Amino acid sequence: MNPTIELLKAHRSIRKFTERKIPHALLLELVRAGQCAATSNHVQAYSVIHVTDPANRERIAELAGGQAYVASCSDFLVFCADMKRPTEASERTGATVVRGMTEQLLVASVDTALMAQNVAIAAESEGLGICYIGGIRNNPHAISDLLRLPEHVYPVFGMCLGYPAHAPEVKPRLPVEAILKEDHYSDDPRQVQAFDDTMQGYYRERRSGRKDANWSRNLSPLFDTKLRPHMRDFLIERGFAMK
Amino acid sequence: MNPTIELLKAHRSIRKFTERKIPHALLLELVRAGQCAATSNHVQAYSVIHVTDPANRERIAELAGGQAYVASCSDFLVFCADMKRPTEASERTGATVVRGMTEQLLVASVDTALMAQNVAIAAESEGLGICYIGGIRNNPHAISDLLRLPEHVYPVFGMCLGYPAHAPEVKPRLPVEAILKEDHYSDDPRQVQAFDDTMQGYYRERRSGRKDANWSRNLSPLFDTKLRPHMRDFLIERGFAMK
Repeated sequence: MNPTIELLKAHRSIRKFTERKIPHALLLELVRAGQCAATSNHVQAYSVIHVTDPANRERIAELAGGQAYVASCSDFLVFCADMKRPTEASERTGATVVRGMTEQLLVASVDTALMAQNVAIAAESEGLGICYIGGIRNNPHAISDLLRLPEHVYPVFGMCLGYPAHAPEVKPRLPVEAILKEDHYSDDPRQVQAFDDTMQGYYRERRSGRKDANWSRNLSPLFDTKLRPHMRDFLIERGFAMK
Repeated sequence: MNPTIELLKAHRSIRKFTERKIPHALLLELVRAGQCAATSNHVQAYSVIHVTDPANRERIAELAGGQAYVASCSDFLVFCADMKRPTEASERTGATVVRGMTEQLLVASVDTALMAQNVAIAAESEGLGICYIGGIRNNPHAISDLLRLPEHVYPVFGMCLGYPAHAPEVKPRLPVEAILKEDHYSDDPRQVQAFDDTMQGYYRERRSGRKDANWSRNLSPLFDTKLRPHMRDFLIERGFAMK
């Protein structure tokens, strides 16, 4: 296993950070490394908002569901899917542009995720810890207003970055056999049951936050209600009309 | 710049591969490294189909718009957003599950992209080359039939992997100032114009496929027609109802 693969396999979300600040030059380097990820047809359909205003950091921490580390980490980034820049660039060449296609939502969301994951890895390779904040989609209107996001731009997730002040265990993942299939899709509930046992052991024995839980039971709060039911109308309103 | 960041910044799509095959143990290791990416609420909403059947590889190469390297690379993976596994796991615990939320489409698509980007980086760290194949969304019905994808699973993109038989230049990216904003969104068409000049120079001088082009003009074919207009109905049909 080479050092890069070791790094990838050592990932865990960091939610406690020291006071130490990330040098700005390093932050720029991380974002540049992010931009080197593959991008669909070179469209680079993303923008990143670096939230430095402490009041806005506090506000986003609340809006994301009370995630204090949004305010306490060294740097907080909001990764936005951005179809404004490429479509307007195209319009300036005289093209008549069609917006609001579902496919454009996918392209921009995937572009943004690939880019962010490079930022995460670059950060971890420098000894930083990160935590993705999907909770910004709890209140995407308020987040968009705060960051003055225009039409055709939407906040996909945030990311806390900083120097780790704790060292949580790496959380187990499904066995590779459950994920990787030869030629055709197949699934086997026994793989999930075995993983439930793995996770039960993990939750019972981890260093902090021990509980009686497993993977399948943990998922219920995600699926037994309408998850973020505002997202559809929000996206349509922001120009991602899902046509 | 540490070696991992150097690796990230050296990415370019590889479309010509040697005959050398990736050992299966290494392929498994790459997917395991992929699984270590962050996942929204630990949902791991993805499956990966390893397409080994040569006839299917040829067929997918055609369906993706005539991309011969889908057939000629060592290994071809199709990364699927998978809401079937987690929602069914949740149901087996007795939960009543709501499916088809737009938010679930986002969660699964982002989870899949983060995971795939880890696979890409792990592969490149082992000297392999990769190429994402968004073209599988040209014909998602046919791809889904071929891979026997069930409801609540959709093919997001493919990935060619193999040992590189060419060494294309790294393609320039937008200046970091165009991507990273302080506190509020802003944009400046002059940054795009400067990047158009950069890309014009790149296309004029690169080792192969020289042409008179720039970034903004290249984008027009993406936006002046309805990009993959079947995607909306396809996703709804497959259980991603965008509610």
